[in-house]
Amino acid sequence: MIDEHADPTVGDLSEGEILRRILERVGPSAALVGPGDDAAVIAAADGRVVATVDTLVHGPDFRLAWSSAFDLGFKAAAVNLADVAAMGATPTALLVALAMPESTRVSFVTGLADGLRAACRELAPGCAIEGGDLTVSDTLTVAVTALGALAGRDPVLRSGARPGDAVALAGELGRAARGLRVLFERFTDGAGRPVPLDERTLTPGERGDLAAQLRPTPPVALGPAAAAAGATAMMDVSDGLVLDATRLAEASGVTVSIETATLGPDPASALTGGEDHALLATFPGDVALPHGFHRIGSIAARGETAVLVDGRPPSGPGGWDPYRDWDSRSG
Amino acid sequence: MIDEHADPTVGDLSEGEILRRILERVGPSAALVGPGDDAAVIAAADGRVVATVDTLVHGPDFRLAWSSAFDLGFKAAAVNLADVAAMGATPTALLVALAMPESTRVSFVTGLADGLRAACRELAPGCAIEGGDLTVSDTLTVAVTALGALAGRDPVLRSGARPGDAVALAGELGRAARGLRVLFERFTDGAGRPVPLDERTLTPGERGDLAAQLRPTPPVALGPAAAAAGATAMMDVSDGLVLDATRLAEASGVTVSIETATLGPDPASALTGGEDHALLATFPGDVALPHGFHRIGSIAARGETAVLVDGRPPSGPGGWDPYRDWDSRSG
Repeated sequence: MIDEHADPTVGDLSEGEILRRILERVGPSAALVGPGDDAAVIAAADGRVVATVDTLVHGPDFRLAWSSAFDLGFKAAAVNLADVAAMGATPTALLVALAMPESTRVSFVTGLADGLRAACRELAPGCAIEGGDLTVSDTLTVAVTALGALAGRDPVLRSGARPGDAVALAGELGRAARGLRVLFERFTDGAGRPVPLDERTLTPGERGDLAAQLRPTPPVALGPAAAAAGATAMMDVSDGLVLDATRLAEASGVTVSIETATLGPDPASALTGGEDHALLATFPGDVALPHGFHRIGSIAARGETAVLVDGRPPSGPGGWDPYRDWDSRSG
Repeated sequence: MIDEHADPTVGDLSEGEILRRILERVGPSAALVGPGDDAAVIAAADGRVVATVDTLVHGPDFRLAWSSAFDLGFKAAAVNLADVAAMGATPTALLVALAMPESTRVSFVTGLADGLRAACRELAPGCAIEGGDLTVSDTLTVAVTALGALAGRDPVLRSGARPGDAVALAGELGRAARGLRVLFERFTDGAGRPVPLDERTLTPGERGDLAAQLRPTPPVALGPAAAAAGATAMMDVSDGLVLDATRLAEASGVTVSIETATLGPDPASALTGGEDHALLATFPGDVALPHGFHRIGSIAARGETAVLVDGRPPSGPGGWDPYRDWDSRSG
């Protein structure tokens, strides 16, 4: 006999009881004031704090048939840690706003908390979950705010690239998009609805692509490393290299020239795939790239187009736009 | 003839175009790095930052038949500004994560941005919207992160109340709950579904109650004022006075004794109503209360119950729990 009470729904418990179970999982606070008061108080030793927020919504951003609670928590943390890293900062704290149906199992909530914590531990040691909010919603939604510290350095903006700079990348591009294709092509039913994953049917390469999509591991520590090495501009590549390089080029008033030979065996996915959370950075031409970055091109004075791919303007759709791409209504 | 293109939906526009229209409305950044990069950079002059997040979800937290876009933006900002104030801090920045259906009109989004900005201007001058995130969702959801500065003072926690302290309140209690009752009793159809407001049918008092529910104006500036005056404990009263006073009492290891004669003409609503966003603070007995606070009781050594109301343990349900109260399924 199954004891229903062993895994109640969030509707069965008080907010305080759910919070208690989450806080048991997310581990010790590293803050001046951690969870439990009206707000957290986080150290910002150099008098500045980096702050970003990113949301994952069931349907457009993930499907429960494909993502475990742990995956979802891990990804929700990872994508925000990457944004902090892209400023050249080290993550210090996460705040997690979780909106979920009353029918959500508490085991799902604790799994999600485990994923959040694991992402901090693996990608940003010293960063912990320091606050959050629980709400009822028909649509499972995880909004994570990440804070970070610059350790006295200037933030690395998108606008600092200069002609002559090297363009470099940390992390792999195209895998998350390939993983998404595997999900849509192999794990949907005749009506296009997601069906549960069966990883046994996948090659090792496909498994890696799927992991890149469902549980990304952006090179968070390389953000501050790039800043320390003198990066002139940096950003998280989450909407496809061409689109994100265009943003960096527009902000800097330059042209980003990309060489596809540097992009690995699947340059098409690398150029237009989304959700990789790699770091795109520019460095003065005479700087040795920090370990973990490799050169993918160079910065030129602004020409006719913001981006050149192998010397030509890119063709076709450049990247990912959440209001145009996935079909949010079939979630 | 109506020009449909004059008010497109968010599904008609690119993310960049929607962002541009929002940023036009939210006014100048006050940050070191404002919107437009991977993250914002906010000053934290004394080496600490206060951070909190709170989410409003369509259905459980608001109904579009009752809340205008402006109201929703105002409330989403106000409830977070109140949490920063409750630490004794001054709000410095908001990050806004907005998840909305593709069918949402852009005029709704700009109205919401106007409400966010108006709340900052009215309640927390110097605080601005410095970042955010747009996502597609079937459920309109606004998650706001608020940051704040302590100006060198210690944060005022829930845990600092001591026997002999005066218990004081800034703001009015019970109005938001009365406003909610007006909505449910007067502006629902036979099936309990919300119908549009008609303010002409309301008395001035009812209009005030409705405003307290839909567009609350917490006494944000009184949070730092209380801290400067020596408040020993403080919190935002959002879940009803009895429940929130219980939390303060538990955190401080004391008993909070409340005198209902101090609570105005409707003590029942004051004791148990939610969403007032008043400030509950304790001060040493010999301190003159800062202007805007009035005494509602005193702190005693911990007795049998955490809270006493007119010397007796409170009876009945103590307050608001989002997983128990509103019916989230009828939104």
